Amino acid sequence: MLHVAVPDQGLTDASAFVDAGVGVEFTVWTPGEPAPAAPFDLLVLPYMLPAAELRHLPAGLARVLQSQSLGYDGVAGYLPPGFVFCNAPGVHEASTAELAVGLIIADRRGFPGFGAAQLERRWAHTAEPGLAGSRVLLLGAGGVGDQLRLMLEPFQVDLIRVARTARRDEHGPIHAMADLRQLLPTADVVVVAVPLTDQTKGLVSDDFLAAMKDGALLVNVARGPVADTAALLAHTAKGRLHAALDVTDPEPLPDDHPLWSAPNVIITPHVGGHVGAMIPRMRRVIRTQVDRLAAGLPPANVVVST
Amino acid sequence: MLHVAVPDQGLTDASAFVDAGVGVEFTVWTPGEPAPAAPFDLLVLPYMLPAAELRHLPAGLARVLQSQSLGYDGVAGYLPPGFVFCNAPGVHEASTAELAVGLIIADRRGFPGFGAAQLERRWAHTAEPGLAGSRVLLLGAGGVGDQLRLMLEPFQVDLIRVARTARRDEHGPIHAMADLRQLLPTADVVVVAVPLTDQTKGLVSDDFLAAMKDGALLVNVARGPVADTAALLAHTAKGRLHAALDVTDPEPLPDDHPLWSAPNVIITPHVGGHVGAMIPRMRRVIRTQVDRLAAGLPPANVVVST
Repeated sequence: MLHVAVPDQGLTDASAFVDAGVGVEFTVWTPGEPAPAAPFDLLVLPYMLPAAELRHLPAGLARVLQSQSLGYDGVAGYLPPGFVFCNAPGVHEASTAELAVGLIIADRRGFPGFGAAQLERRWAHTAEPGLAGSRVLLLGAGGVGDQLRLMLEPFQVDLIRVARTARRDEHGPIHAMADLRQLLPTADVVVVAVPLTDQTKGLVSDDFLAAMKDGALLVNVARGPVADTAALLAHTAKGRLHAALDVTDPEPLPDDHPLWSAPNVIITPHVGGHVGAMIPRMRRVIRTQVDRLAAGLPPANVVVST
Repeated sequence: MLHVAVPDQGLTDASAFVDAGVGVEFTVWTPGEPAPAAPFDLLVLPYMLPAAELRHLPAGLARVLQSQSLGYDGVAGYLPPGFVFCNAPGVHEASTAELAVGLIIADRRGFPGFGAAQLERRWAHTAEPGLAGSRVLLLGAGGVGDQLRLMLEPFQVDLIRVARTARRDEHGPIHAMADLRQLLPTADVVVVAVPLTDQTKGLVSDDFLAAMKDGALLVNVARGPVADTAALLAHTAKGRLHAALDVTDPEPLPDDHPLWSAPNVIITPHVGGHVGAMIPRMRRVIRTQVDRLAAGLPPANVVVST
């Protein structure tokens, strides 16, 4: 019998576990509640729990922590001793890339302007640049980057991929971050889909943005601190660059923040991974961990252990 | 020497004709101006000229009329005797499909709601259905439909194609319009990309919309009269269906029309084909006609001749 704690009932659909070959008992438990008498075998954390909250987890609460996110920035700094922390690949990549494609088309086809005209009941026919024929710089060759490569392919764009180190895969060359200064001035759209690390924090700096060409679009579906908010604001406020941001720094963005009303800036509230398809995908992640723990194997996707 | 009339200077970039093997003289001419002394060999019509305007064209003005659109609904009823009317395949299909994908993602990911929240400077994190895993019914297997099939493929949707007659091509089955009543209740998204003909006028009727399931999205990137506006309004006003409309009936939509403010309705002002990439694509169409006329061949893409 495996004892699995989940933050809400939605993840416990019995049909996903009926053939698990081991009894599974689910408890709904969220951080802050009293610790259980016996430790959980697996504790699924609430979606988007801030890493700093991990420091309050009682010792001996659970053997394995399962996050519902792909990114795990900050976890190593806050996780108390004695835990194994697993991230959740395969849950959010496709939906984050889907959102990024939507944001790119929304900007390149003038949706914000048409939305404003609709509110004023105004038929405002204008030509917009469009996406086809433009150059897209994609930063990050991980799960989200790979989905983006796939999804952008039929849109007739010139896709240039950039990652930490230069290499070549079956889809062509990947350029090094060191080449960014040469590449940025050539791009119509720059999409940031890198994990937040010490190396990527502040990557989208004033210099980075200054190297982008007039009217180009920056899309951030990574993490807020990958971009320097003050620099973003400076370059969008004067109307030189467009931005589409699913993540911001700070987050949530305070209601008096000037970024809310910067021209040609689209803000979505960190919903890259938050779609209906997330729940069944998370159930599959939990099922995999249950199967591994039942078989006496170490959990999958361990990214921090203390 | 070929005498070509164009409605604006943008289409006459000499570099596209320098190697044409025949002299080309361009005149900027738009309907309503006095007729020239000698007839034009080719007259390129203004983009989105209403078909009814064709009836005023003076006899003997030009041998061949080149439209800048794909659709040619109404042309046969208004074209005076003695003209050959050509449409413009290859100019708008990719950009119309690009717009349709953008509209689909915008609706399925809640962009209008996030846009309203941004105006109120409000971080409103919500889960939206998303596109992945949903069923998309695509009506129309012409140029736009084919681009849409290609573009939607990486988004993990269950794509069902429907056209006038049932058939099978290298990408799988195409269902007949006669099967619509069975298919409509199964779809999360229905995209209409058919030409406007006597058969498709009013296709999206009250019955059609009533057969769609609650919360589903109708996308019209075809022509306004393919949908019954009163029925669209009835099904969206009560919040049962979502709609994304690049075309309306009437068009432009009058400022007092209730569709402007129907909930979950996105309206763009017939911009499916109107992007930066249109101009070079139109130049290629003109070049093809110049080459054919110079070689003594009949013009390409003749759709109406009187």
